[in-house]
Formats: sequence, C-alpha cells, structure tokens
Amino acid sequence: MKTSKEYKESLQKMKPNIYKFSELIEDVTMHPATKRTVNGHAQIFDAAQKPEYNDILTTKSSLTGKQIVRYLSIIGSPEDMIANVRMKRLMFNLTGTCTGGRCAGNNAINAMWATTYNMDNDLGTDYHKRIKKWLIDAQERDITISGALTDSKGDRSKSPIQQKDPDMSLHVVEEKEDGIIVRGAKVMICGVAAANEIFIIPGMGYKEQNKDYAVSFVIPRDIENLTIVETRRPSDTREKEEGFDIPVDVGGITQAYLLFENVFVPNKRVFMCKEFDYSLKAVMNFIAPYRAAIGGCVAGQGDVMIGAAALIARANGLSEKIFREKITQMIINNETTFGMGVAASALGMKHPSGVWIPDQLLSNINKIHVATLPYDTKRITQDIAGGIAETGCLPSCQDLNDPKYGTLLKKYLKANCSGETRAKIARLIEWLTIGAGVPGCMHGGGSPDGAKLIINAKTDINYYIEMAKRLADIKEDIRVEPKK
Amino acid sequence: MKTSKEYKESLQKMKPNIYKFSELIEDVTMHPATKRTVNGHAQIFDAAQKPEYNDILTTKSSLTGKQIVRYLSIIGSPEDMIANVRMKRLMFNLTGTCTGGRCAGNNAINAMWATTYNMDNDLGTDYHKRIKKWLIDAQERDITISGALTDSKGDRSKSPIQQKDPDMSLHVVEEKEDGIIVRGAKVMICGVAAANEIFIIPGMGYKEQNKDYAVSFVIPRDIENLTIVETRRPSDTREKEEGFDIPVDVGGITQAYLLFENVFVPNKRVFMCKEFDYSLKAVMNFIAPYRAAIGGCVAGQGDVMIGAAALIARANGLSEKIFREKITQMIINNETTFGMGVAASALGMKHPSGVWIPDQLLSNINKIHVATLPYDTKRITQDIAGGIAETGCLPSCQDLNDPKYGTLLKKYLKANCSGETRAKIARLIEWLTIGAGVPGCMHGGGSPDGAKLIINAKTDINYYIEMAKRLADIKEDIRVEPKK
Amino acid sequence: MKTSKEYKESLQKMKPNIYKFSELIEDVTMHPATKRTVNGHAQIFDAAQKPEYNDILTTKSSLTGKQIVRYLSIIGSPEDMIANVRMKRLMFNLTGTCTGGRCAGNNAINAMWATTYNMDNDLGTDYHKRIKKWLIDAQERDITISGALTDSKGDRSKSPIQQKDPDMSLHVVEEKEDGIIVRGAKVMICGVAAANEIFIIPGMGYKEQNKDYAVSFVIPRDIENLTIVETRRPSDTREKEEGFDIPVDVGGITQAYLLFENVFVPNKRVFMCKEFDYSLKAVMNFIAPYRAAIGGCVAGQGDVMIGAAALIARANGLSEKIFREKITQMIINNETTFGMGVAASALGMKHPSGVWIPDQLLSNINKIHVATLPYDTKRITQDIAGGIAETGCLPSCQDLNDPKYGTLLKKYLKANCSGETRAKIARLIEWLTIGAGVPGCMHGGGSPDGAKLIINAKTDINYYIEMAKRLADIKEDIRVEPKK
Amino acid sequence: MKTSKEYKESLQKMKPNIYKFSELIEDVTMHPATKRTVNGHAQIFDAAQKPEYNDILTTKSSLTGKQIVRYLSIIGSPEDMIANVRMKRLMFNLTGTCTGGRCAGNNAINAMWATTYNMDNDLGTDYHKRIKKWLIDAQERDITISGALTDSKGDRSKSPIQQKDPDMSLHVVEEKEDGIIVRGAKVMICGVAAANEIFIIPGMGYKEQNKDYAVSFVIPRDIENLTIVETRRPSDTREKEEGFDIPVDVGGITQAYLLFENVFVPNKRVFMCKEFDYSLKAVMNFIAPYRAAIGGCVAGQGDVMIGAAALIARANGLSEKIFREKITQMIINNETTFGMGVAASALGMKHPSGVWIPDQLLSNINKIHVATLPYDTKRITQDIAGGIAETGCLPSCQDLNDPKYGTLLKKYLKANCSGETRAKIARLIEWLTIGAGVPGCMHGGGSPDGAKLIINAKTDINYYIEMAKRLADIKEDIRVEPKK
Repeated sequence: MKTSKEYKESLQKMKPNIYKFSELIEDVTMHPATKRTVNGHAQIFDAAQKPEYNDILTTKSSLTGKQIVRYLSIIGSPEDMIANVRMKRLMFNLTGTCTGGRCAGNNAINAMWATTYNMDNDLGTDYHKRIKKWLIDAQERDITISGALTDSKGDRSKSPIQQKDPDMSLHVVEEKEDGIIVRGAKVMICGVAAANEIFIIPGMGYKEQNKDYAVSFVIPRDIENLTIVETRRPSDTREKEEGFDIPVDVGGITQAYLLFENVFVPNKRVFMCKEFDYSLKAVMNFIAPYRAAIGGCVAGQGDVMIGAAALIARANGLSEKIFREKITQMIINNETTFGMGVAASALGMKHPSGVWIPDQLLSNINKIHVATLPYDTKRITQDIAGGIAETGCLPSCQDLNDPKYGTLLKKYLKANCSGETRAKIARLIEWLTIGAGVPGCMHGGGSPDGAKLIINAKTDINYYIEMAKRLADIKEDIRVEPKK
Repeated sequence: MKTSKEYKESLQKMKPNIYKFSELIEDVTMHPATKRTVNGHAQIFDAAQKPEYNDILTTKSSLTGKQIVRYLSIIGSPEDMIANVRMKRLMFNLTGTCTGGRCAGNNAINAMWATTYNMDNDLGTDYHKRIKKWLIDAQERDITISGALTDSKGDRSKSPIQQKDPDMSLHVVEEKEDGIIVRGAKVMICGVAAANEIFIIPGMGYKEQNKDYAVSFVIPRDIENLTIVETRRPSDTREKEEGFDIPVDVGGITQAYLLFENVFVPNKRVFMCKEFDYSLKAVMNFIAPYRAAIGGCVAGQGDVMIGAAALIARANGLSEKIFREKITQMIINNETTFGMGVAASALGMKHPSGVWIPDQLLSNINKIHVATLPYDTKRITQDIAGGIAETGCLPSCQDLNDPKYGTLLKKYLKANCSGETRAKIARLIEWLTIGAGVPGCMHGGGSPDGAKLIINAKTDINYYIEMAKRLADIKEDIRVEPKK
Repeated sequence: MKTSKEYKESLQKMKPNIYKFSELIEDVTMHPATKRTVNGHAQIFDAAQKPEYNDILTTKSSLTGKQIVRYLSIIGSPEDMIANVRMKRLMFNLTGTCTGGRCAGNNAINAMWATTYNMDNDLGTDYHKRIKKWLIDAQERDITISGALTDSKGDRSKSPIQQKDPDMSLHVVEEKEDGIIVRGAKVMICGVAAANEIFIIPGMGYKEQNKDYAVSFVIPRDIENLTIVETRRPSDTREKEEGFDIPVDVGGITQAYLLFENVFVPNKRVFMCKEFDYSLKAVMNFIAPYRAAIGGCVAGQGDVMIGAAALIARANGLSEKIFREKITQMIINNETTFGMGVAASALGMKHPSGVWIPDQLLSNINKIHVATLPYDTKRITQDIAGGIAETGCLPSCQDLNDPKYGTLLKKYLKANCSGETRAKIARLIEWLTIGAGVPGCMHGGGSPDGAKLIINAKTDINYYIEMAKRLADIKEDIRVEPKK
Repeated sequence: MKTSKEYKESLQKMKPNIYKFSELIEDVTMHPATKRTVNGHAQIFDAAQKPEYNDILTTKSSLTGKQIVRYLSIIGSPEDMIANVRMKRLMFNLTGTCTGGRCAGNNAINAMWATTYNMDNDLGTDYHKRIKKWLIDAQERDITISGALTDSKGDRSKSPIQQKDPDMSLHVVEEKEDGIIVRGAKVMICGVAAANEIFIIPGMGYKEQNKDYAVSFVIPRDIENLTIVETRRPSDTREKEEGFDIPVDVGGITQAYLLFENVFVPNKRVFMCKEFDYSLKAVMNFIAPYRAAIGGCVAGQGDVMIGAAALIARANGLSEKIFREKITQMIINNETTFGMGVAASALGMKHPSGVWIPDQLLSNINKIHVATLPYDTKRITQDIAGGIAETGCLPSCQDLNDPKYGTLLKKYLKANCSGETRAKIARLIEWLTIGAGVPGCMHGGGSPDGAKLIINAKTDINYYIEMAKRLADIKEDIRVEPKK
C-alpha cells in the first residue's frame, strides 16, 4: 500500500486537465484550489498505517488475499458495510469534511461488480471478467478512484433523447472494434482532483429508446479529450490567501464538471454499453451502500461541530454544560444518521456476486435524515457559538494583522483565550456551517425526493391495510377507483 | 412448547390475586379486564408454530439445545438481538398493541444472567447457578414471565432511606436461612395478568446505605402476600360492553401495581440480595436491550396506523395516494425507531456470560425517538382520518344499534363502505391514538430524561474538542473553571 | 344578562331530544353525559359578571347599545376580534376544555351577518333583515347558540347529488309558503346539549347542481323532528362513576350528531335557501374568525397543561425548574397559536356589513399550527409528568378507596404530597392529554389540508418569482407547460 | 425628504474611516465592499417616493407634523408598529437582504426616547430634551442612523469591571464640562457604512459597580478617534469580481467593528451617562420592537426564497406545483414570523413618552422562531433547487465565460432556459442560503437563549399551577424546597 507521499507523487505525474478561474492547474498537490482536498485524501494513506485506524480503513482483498484499503474492496458482509460507515465517519473526523474522491468510486465498483455479474450470467457478456481484472490491478497499484454518476440532464421533464441537445446526458456516440467513444458531461463530481481514475456509471435507469445512455466505464483522470472544471464553493477565493480564513489545511472538498468531448474508452475498461435493462439495477446497487454510508459522513462532520461548539463556548468563558440540552440534540442527530447507516448495513442481503447490498428501505430513509438533521446540527452550532461565528461577524485574518488596528481587533476579540485563537475557532465554525467545508448532503448521492420515491416503491400499502383489517375484524372490501 | 390453549389453562390454574374496580378477577382468561391481553399473549404461542413466524419467535436454547420461544432465551449475538427487535414489531403487528408480559421479563432474565455472572466471579456467590437452574426449568415449562423494575419511589428528590416511609421502594426486610422477606411495591408493571411468573430487578442503582433495596428475584405471580391491582386505561370500562367500541379482541395491554406485603422468596429464586454495587449494572444491562427493542414495538404499532389511515381514507372515498407525503412520514418514523434498534443491536458487545449487550449510546438515543416519533405518527393518523376518528366524533356502538335511531346513524356514517365498517375503522384509530391500545412509550422502560443522562455520561466532550482543535490547528489550552 | 342559574333553567325547560347509550336525556343539567359541558357553559354567565373578566366576555351590542355577552355580538373591529381570541383562551383556562356550544354559533352569526348583507344587496332578498331581527331578540333573551356546519357527506370524492343517497348532506326537501323542510344530518357538532338554539350554515361551497344544499337557518335545539345523539369520548363511561376519574366537574366537551327528519323551519329563521353562489362566501366568512380564535382555545388548554405539568413535578418531589427547557417550549407553542390568532385578527378587513373579517392567510396558517403544536404540548406534559400520568398507569378511584388494599395504593402513590392528591393531578393530565378533555383541534373548524388549499389559493407564485428575478437581474421568461 | 442621489452624496462627503482587508475605503458608494449595502439603503429613498410603498415607508412626524421616513419616527401606536414590521419585510423583498443600517438605529431612538423620558421625570436630567432636539434636526436632515448595542464583552462569565481589561465593553473614561470621552468597541454592527450617524446604547443592564458602562449617545459615523473595520462575509471577495457570482447589486449586508479610542461626545448628543438603573430598561425598550419586527425581516427574505425556488424548478423543467407541500411549508414559516411580529405589535402598551412598546412575551417568542424557521426555509430552498444550487456545484462566472470551455459549460447548464440564466438563479439561491446574502438571524438583536430568559422571567408558574388546581379541585399545598 502506498504512502501519502507516493500518493501525491502519483497525482503529480498526471497530465494537467483541471481548470478553475480560467487557469489550468499544473500541480493539484500544490495549487490552492485543490491542495486541501488532496491533503484530505492523503490522510487516508497515513491513517491506514496507524494501528488505531487500521481495522477501519483496510481489509483483506477478496480477490488477492492481500491487505488493501477498504475503498478498493468488495463489500462482502454486514461487518464490511458497517466498517464502511465507520470509515466515512472517521475521515470526516480527520479532515473536517468530505473525501469524496474515494467513496463514490468505491460504491461504483461495488455496484458494477454486482451488475456485471448479472449481465454476464444473463447475456453472456464478459463485463464481470473485465472489472475483475481491472480491480485486481487497481488494488495492486493502490490507486484513488472517484465515481461519477450525475449527468447534466437538461430539462428534467424530458428523457435524454427527448432533449433538443442529445448530449445533455453522457452517451455512447460510436462503438469501435477496440472501444467506445462517449460524449456529454458528468457534473458536480466530488474529489476528481484527488483521484487517479474516474469510474462512470449511468445517472438513472433507462428504457430502450435511451439505450445509448446506458454506459459504464473507468478512465484515467487525465484521459485525452476530457476537460475538468472545478466549481466554486462558498468563500473559495480565500483559499488563495495567507492566514486562517480557510481554517483547515488537512482537508477540503471540491466538486467538478467533467466535459467529455468524444473520449475514447478501450473495451477492457467498459463495463456496460447500451444494456439499458441493467442501468436501473446499477443505480440501485450504487444507491443502497451510498445512502447507508452517508449517515456516517454527516455524523462525522457533526462530531466536529460538537467539538467546535464546546470549544467556542469555553473560549467565550462559558462551560459547555450550559448548553447540555443543545449538545445532546447534536449527538442525537449525529448518532441517528450513523445508526440508520449501520442498520441498513446490518440488514441488507448478499448478492450472488458476493457483494453485500444494504437494505434499500433503511438506506433511503437515511437519505431523508441526511437531508434534514445536519442542517439542524449546523443551526445549533451557530446558536451555541454566539454572534461571532455567525455570518459576517468577524474581521478578516488580514485585518487582524493590520499594523494600524490589528492589535485593537485582537484586544477586543479576546475572551477566555487570546483573540486570535477565538477567531480561529469562529472561522472553523463558519467553515463548517456556512463556508467551504459544507458538504452537499442534500443532493449528494441523489435527492431526498428520489429517496421518497424508492421508499414508496418499497411499500405495499395493502399489506398494512390487511393488518389493520384483521385487528378490527373488518371483512368488507373497500376500494377506491383510480381517477380517470 | 405449549399451545395457546395450554398457556391459557396454565393461567386458569393459578390462584386469583388480581383486582380491578374492587373486584377479584377469578379467571384472567375470561374476565373483560384481562382477557384481551391474555389473547394477545396467547398469539405468541400460535404464531410460534407458524412457519412464517417461526424464525422470529423461536430459537435454540443455549442451555439445552432445544427449540424455545425467544422470550425465554439468552440473547447471544447481534443476530439474536435483531431478531428480538423484529419479534417486538411482529407482536405489535399481530395484536395492535403491547404484549408486555414477556419482553420486560426476557430483558430481566438477560440482565441478571450477565450481572449474576459478574457477581459470582467477583464475590463467590452462586446466583448465576441459581438463575441457570431456574431458567432451564422455565424453558422446560415454557412459562410466561413478566418483568418488574419500577418502584413506587415516593419523593423523587430523596433516596429510599431518606423517605419518611421506608417501603417506598421494594426492599429486603428480613434475611432467613431459606430465603428472604420483601416489602414494597412495584408499580405500572405491564402484562402481569398474562404471566405465570414475575421477575423482579432493582429500579435503579444504589449506594451502600440503600443496600436493602438492591434485590432481584423471580416469583410465581400468585405467590402468597402479593396483591395485584390493575390500573385504568383510557376507555377501559368499554371492555365490559358488547360491540366494537373496544375494536380489538386479539390483543390488549394492561398495567398493574404489585403490592408486596412481606412476601417470602426462597433462596433458589433470589439473584441479588444487598449486593448494591451490582444494582446499577443490572439496570444498565436491562436498559440496553429494552431501549433497542422498543424501537421495534412502536414501529409495529405504527405499521398498524399506516394501515388504518389508508383504510379510512378509502372508506371516506379517497385514495391513500392523496396522503402520500404523510404516509411517507409515518414510514420514516416507524423505520427510524426500528432501524435505530437494529443498529444498537448490531453494534453492542459480548458480555463474558454470553449475553450480547446492545450499544448503550444508540439504545438510549432510540429511547428519545421512541418518546417523540410515535406521537407524530399518531397525529398524522388522525390528520388523514378526518374528523370521524378524532376525539369524540362517533356515537357508541350501542347507539348505532338503537332501534329508534340506529339505522339513521348508520345511514349517515356510510361513505365508500357501510356505516358500520367505517365506524369500526374509526374506532380502531381512536383505540390506537387516544384509546385503550396506546402503549406507554414515553416512560416505559424508563424516561427520556434518564436516557439523556446516559447519553451525556457516554460522551467525552474533550474527545470532540480535541478533534476540532486539531483541524483548526489550535494549540492554546482553554479551560473554564467550574462554578463554586 | 342571565345568571348561570337562569341559564340552566332555560335548558331544563326544553323538550328532551338528546340521546346517549340508547337513553333519552331528560335533564341535560343533571345527566352525567351532559352536566359537565353545561357546567362549563354556565361559567360564562358567572365570569361575565366578574370585574376581572367583564371586558373580555361582554361588549356593547352594535344593534341595541346594551351590554351583551360577546358570543352574541357582531365582531366589528380588530379589537373585538382580539378580545374574541382572548375570550376563547379564558374559557379554556376556566373549564379546562372547550365550550364549543357558543363559539361556532357566534362565528355562524357573524358569517351569515356578512353573507346575508351581500345577498340582500345583490339579490334583493330580506335575509339580512331576518337575521337582524332574530339577533336582537336573541341578545334580549341572552340565549346560547351553537353552530353546525359539518355534513355527514358520504363519499368524499363525490358531491351531494352524486351520492347514491341524496341525504348525505343536509338539504332543502320542500319549500313551503311559510318555511322550508330540511333533511339530512349535521355531525360532530359541539356543545348542542348546552345550547338553546342551533345555527346551521352550509358545510362547503356549492355549484348550481347542488343548490338544494345551500341552506342556512337557526332553530331551537328541541325543534320537532330533530333527534340528537351524543357521541362517545375517551373514557366517557367514567362520567357515570363517583370519584375523580373524570377529574373536572366545572367543564366538559361533548359532540353530537343532529338527525333532521323533515324538520320544518319558518321563513323568519331561514337565512339562505338555494342561493348556492353565496355558500362558499358563508363558509369563508365562518372560517376566518374561527381559525383565528381557535389559536386562543388551544393556548388556553396549553396553559392548563403547563400548570398541571409543574404541579405534578412538585408532587413528584421535583422543582419545575428542572424542566425549564420543556416548559419554555410549551409556552412557545401556546403563545404561537395565540399570537397567530391575534395577528390574523389585527390584519383582516372590514366587511361592508360591519363585520371584521380576520386575515384569511394568517387564519389558515394558524389552523396548521393548531393541528400540530398542541400535540407537542401534550407530549411534553406527559414527558414531565413521569409514568404515573401516562396511559394506563394509575388504579381507579374506586380501587384507591377499596377497603382491602386502597390504603396500600395510597401509601405507594404518595410522594411530595398525599397519594390521593397525586392521583388527582395524574388524572387531570390524563384527561387533558388522552382523556375526555381532549378537544378536536385537528379537524374542528375544518381540516389542515383544507387550510392548505386556502393558503395555496391565496398565494400568487408569480409575484414571488418576479421578486427573485428582479434581484438577480434575470430577464429570460421561463415557463413550464402544464402536463396534458 | 432626500433622494437616493442626495443620500449617496451625503455619504461621499464624510471623512473616510472604514477599513477592510487593510484598505481604507475612500468612497463607500463605489467601493466593492460597501457599495451593495449602500445601494440597498438607497432603495429606501427611491421606494419612499413610490405611491405603492409610500404608506409603509413614510409617516407624519409626531414632532413636526412633516412627512418623514418611518426609520426616523417615534412608533406611537399598534398601527405604526405593524407598519414597521411590514417595512422590514418590504425592504428584504426589495434588496434580498438586510438594510440593517437603519432598523437598529430606529429602535435605539425609540428605546432612548422612552428611557430618557423616565430618566428626566425621575432624576431631573434633561436627556429627553436633548434627544428631542437632536431628533427634530435628524428628521430635518433626513439622515441615516445605524444603531450599535453589542459590546465586545470579553469573558462572558464576568461583568465589565471583572474583566482583566476594562475596555472589553464600551465605557465612559472621562466626564468633561462639555461632554464625555468613551473607549471600547461595539462589534458586529450592521450597516454603518451606509449610515450618517451611529446611535449607541448599552449592551446590557448594569448594576452600580459597572455604572461607567451605562452610556448612550449618538455620533457622526466619521467622528474623530473612531476606526471602523468591516468584517468578512461568506464569499465576500467575490464582490471584487466582475460577473454575477455575487448575484445581487441592489442590496447587500455588512457588519463592522467600531473601535472607540477615546472618542469625545458633546453633551447634547449624550442621552445616558452612568445612570445604571436605566440601562436594563433601555435594553428592554430596544428589544421589544426589534424582536417583533425581525419577524418581518426573515419573512421578507423567505419570500425571495419562495420565488427563487419556484424559478429554479421551472428552469429545471419542472412545475413548482410538484413542490407544493414544500412551498406551503415555506409560506407557513414566513407568515409565522411575520404574524408573530404583528401580534406582538398589536398587543403591547403605550409608554407615557408616547412610544408604543410591543408585547415582550410575544416579541421574545418570535425571536425563537426567527432563530429556527428561516433555517428550515433555507433547507427547503436547497431541497427544491436540486444539486446545482447546493454548495459548490456550479463553476464560476469567469469559467462560464472562458474562451476554451465556457461554451461547453453553458451547453451543459442549460435546461428549460439558457445555461447562463440557470446559473444566475442558482447563484441567487447560494447567496440567499449559504452566501453573502445570509443575514444574522440567530444572534442579531440578541440570542435565542437571551429571549428564553425573558420568556421565563415573564412567566409566573404559580398562576398556571393555581389554574390546574382549581380545575381538579386540589386543595393541598405542594411546595418543593429549593436545593441548598
């Protein structure tokens, strides 16, 4: 397994194709727009070698028997999946934010591991063999693989071929002997700057008329004809500044648009090509572990908020005990998303390919919690912190160091600690609650409304009705005609 | 294993010592105040023999290798504990309410199994041997064992010996050669009318001065000098009436006060006697599985509410699809308490005695959800149902059958089904939300405020603070002096 | 103005036509099923004469200049309407529950005062003259007038004439020279047993084909061919018992079904007859003050819950200060519904007839709060109270007085007060939260879903969109074609 | 009354003393850090002259009878106060955010109007005469006056004189014949860059030992020895960029630290000097109208969120009707804070000085809602918007215009409108929910915990207890001894 130094070197060796603010990023490990997220991902390599985190971050490969990082493993059991939830929580604890350049990739690998297994069985394809070969090699190289699912989509009321522009979702434009050519965009993709490769899976289930859009493959991040544009985050230009106004150096989250201008993918890296019937399965296989594990993510960031809130209370001169009721609520919020992730992991079912698929109902219910509870936790953090950590209530680091009035600012910022320390804590809270550290827990891994659709699809209302009828001894059949 | 008929016969053979409304209940299986809860418990015996429920309700005894009902088993693994959560949900599905004459008993057995193991190891007592012998016999006889924990307590700001009346908590008044004599009351005890024996454990942790109150034992329900008084439930006098104003016959919940007037318990049935240091452990060992599994209970009743709500919507002439958002919220509520119970079960730890103890933090967080979410589910049920199922909006069954105006009432009650059927559904909803079927999910198994104390005790705030300090690179030590 | 004694005598003089449990209630002031609600309404007369309540409960008649009870007044200003909200809160404070035999009547008078004004103006009818004459007389006689709006309706997906049975909503079956004959049922009508007359208004807005259902009139409660059946409430049979298991004697709520079997109403008491275009107006004029003032009702009961919760905390030996956070939440809940009622009252508009119509948007938003916040307040009350006040945790009053074990029960119930007092407080909480004192705040005055329809109807989404477009300087026109 | 042009000229005439990023801002009307907030405040002058807004924004001076802007008026009636709540909502509608350079000033004027009236009456001072003279002149000059209350405070567990540094709250360091000299800092003060003068009032109530801190006065913003440092907001460096990444030009919010280094204030501008007994009164007089009116503020921003959410739904190709349930919840949130502000305004009481003081209980309850409901509204906005408007999911405006790949980005951003328009809407939502437009509704005007203290102080728990005792006919006196 790689060291963090080797990991960074592997990124530096890649061809630059990432842009931000019209600038080509030559070295993602050094550029202010990407270095923090690379640092965050590098922590995975460091932590994997520490005894206290080893069990959570690494496991034995089911393919080779060698010790590998979990992010490259096939999730084979409830225990694996629970470890996965813990791993997400740990990485948020260590980086303060999302290391999204690995988890979606890991989920994509697992989703396509299962889906290709079915495809090969049903259709006589050799996709599963391809992914297996590629994965053994990937484990060997210990590479970082981000995952990309979300298409740009265009008008949400229309399917891909109904769009005026056929490129609004990524699609196969040509099948060649030795590979395929694809065009379109995957958007809002997390952590690609920290990745060596990118795993692509369909953004939704498709019917036959949209079969060109049913495509899955894995590519080097710096593949030809792929242009990557990093998006803005709140306060992202602070990243270029000196000082602590971006308070965290050991982690950072980025999201990007991937622009595919006729990218050629060789066959051995293609895992689905127009088998539309399997596109929804791939998505569902992706969703279940993703929406389970994301409960660990937001709990992990919530843990940091508890610490930051208690710390600023003390900095303000107050014991955190005064805020016990609020901190208890933060704990409840954190443990609820974590717990629901664990529960979805514990139930689930074994797919014939060997993948453990968490329970869809509980996973998707967790997605709803993930789209609500962390917002409450953020609000409580700001509540405890007092005005200083709320929006727009702290001068810039540059002003704190101003020769004319910087001393005065620090004089007035001091409380039960130095003014500078108090400002740092306040910046951490801003970063966590309304700044560059906020992850996309509302729509990341799909929207809560999508989760509700699945919850409803998993619900047989007549089962519940019969339960009630039996209890009250009701025999009459009661139907409602559907509206015409 | 017994049949439900044999179970009822075993109750009929016992000596009457249960009262309600100043009347001695001669036969608990026939008396209107107790027959429904006996019916509910009897369903356990019937369901245990059905293939579809067999796995959930029975297991192999770790003591004898024989197939036994789970309620008499030692919970030995996460799988056992998850099955326990499912069992509770199933029984609420089948009875519409609580079969509390078994679950507290089962938790008490497990709690004392672990606690006596430690006591024997530490103190050289033989309590664990006693409980083992008793339990093998109990499994053999397939008896129903309720559990009793809550003391009457008196003034909550004072410990037992600080009370003016030393009897306010159950205590040992005399130790004899062959047993002990106890006095006091256990109150609000669920399902004793349906039980053959009652398992007593301490109501809280005690220090040395209160050591007489650290006592655990198991007794036949009809033991000499024990008087049992059943409490009132909402609308309980309807139980004496004909008709469907108590709409469920196959289940019912009861709670009772147990009055111990110098009850003699032989040594072989005593599992703790003044070993105060183990009283808190016993309570904690009880709480963890109880507060995990109760998430299944309230989910199980919530399932019935979903069915009843959808059914009355149809009875009113409306598709339940109109209420999709509300029903989805009910599902989320149900699956959250169920899921958190599963999660607590999946984490946990193995006690050296062989008992699997669910995770205390998640169990206690679930207790908070159990004390809030079902209230929301009830409210939504009433919301969907329309006025008819809300409080006080439906004439009595007797009036529906009145020769003068009963036909008119039924005429005006009909909608998309007969008036009588619609009335039955409305009664079921009343029973579930504001009637005799409402279980005590707020304080049953302890209060949410008690759960919060445990949550706080399990939280090391400095762990979180250090996490935040590391991220923002803060070195300064910030302390707050405790107030004097 | 009448004394409470005169009020009760006026009820005794009426012809019995109210039934419960197949029994004709001969004297509503003495019969256990109705005497508590009569007592509650009688308190209005007593309180009106007390200086501290005089301003809230009485006002000067805009018709005669004489001092009258507010329940018989035309609401002519924001101040009147705010006093109305306060009056509802006061009466819940004094009776613990709803005195619904007056408020719906008062709202019906005001709604038809405005609606008949428009009808006479538009159509040349003399309805407004009729209602004026009747109202002067009603004020003179100081009578109690309940209001009835809700029809039995039948299948909710069908209009009255689409029902198989044309009687599913109340309708005119014959117009005679001197009056009209009506048939059908008004259901779930509050407080009729305490009323001298009943004011009928349409249950919803009707189009022409349902014009026979657009009917409004006022009748003596004991009019010929009207049969009244009182409904069940939780625990209502306790009303027949001795003791305090129904803990409140000075108030009570009842709801009834009114069965009209060809009731003849003389013209002077008819205020709408088939003028379907005015039926929706009548309903809207009713809804606005009703849904504003109901915020006072639930606040008033919430006040009692605060007191009961604090009292049982003390009875348990605990200072209510321990529960400060919870009690604060109860206060917030209460003052929010009260405040929103005040706000709807303060905004509003003056109808040309002289009636002040509260703001429809705020009134209907308050209806949503009224359908949620009190449920939270009840839950908190049970939370603070501990197990004793939760469902089914207290023996009956009869058992407390049992010669054999009653003394023991009281011994074990005592805490920081006598066992009997503690039991009384627990019964009060049961009565308030899950017993006979619970009012129908979910669907009373209409359902929250109905309120949401009005909120949406009052919302011009394009107004908000243009606001956003202006701010972000967006010129492009963005439309979505409606689905076909 | 001034035009917006005259207003801006008045700001340009002032001496520069505002800094940000170590730069002295020469012209607040042109500098990117301040021009948007000046634009926002300038809209007040424009809108005041439009007939549709005239009633809301202007009123007749109670001092001179001339038409003045409400922000310079004495609030003399419920109608005035309700207009004030509406004015705040309107200004948020027009600017998208806070025009905080006027409202705190207006509240400070009113608070000291009442407080000085009492002081002059009680103590024989001439403060009320001073403020009256100053206010007539201020109305004549039509100046913009911001208000400053919050001290830097230091250690929150200590009073000002207990701090190691006596300057941690603003205080009088010298009394001279013709005026006073003050030192300290007021922090997080809104909108000073848009103001001509700043009105200072005490940050809390003081006892005698802290009497030097009981000080109130009004000063020109550019007074000698006052240094102002603007704070950072999320994404504030975008303000220096071209394009729409700060999407709103017509409004903006700023907050600043005011550093008083021995500022001399002439007597005629001093309204309190060491009269500590009146400091708490001043604060309470400030809080009531502030916490009532802030309900209008957050409703006003919520209105914009409704529009932005509906607009992006359409841009995504979806009808906003799909999100009806969510939009209804947004409306409920908005109207609740607005309504509670109206209710507090409608109740209240007339101070002898002529000021109408809104109801303290309802005002402070509204503060709680203001600290919770807008967070929910923001969350729903992000929920409806889809991923694009969530954190970090949109490339920069500069990248959208990149010659190499800008066209591609816009291609993939288009949906039911152009890519650029869709990006603009998404930026507006980011700005409103997690960007520079977010106002400080948690701690602005004081913290929710402070509001809870007042709510509790206004609550006589025994009043509620007696209410409950009367209902359940309980005579026993139940007391809990305070813990020693």
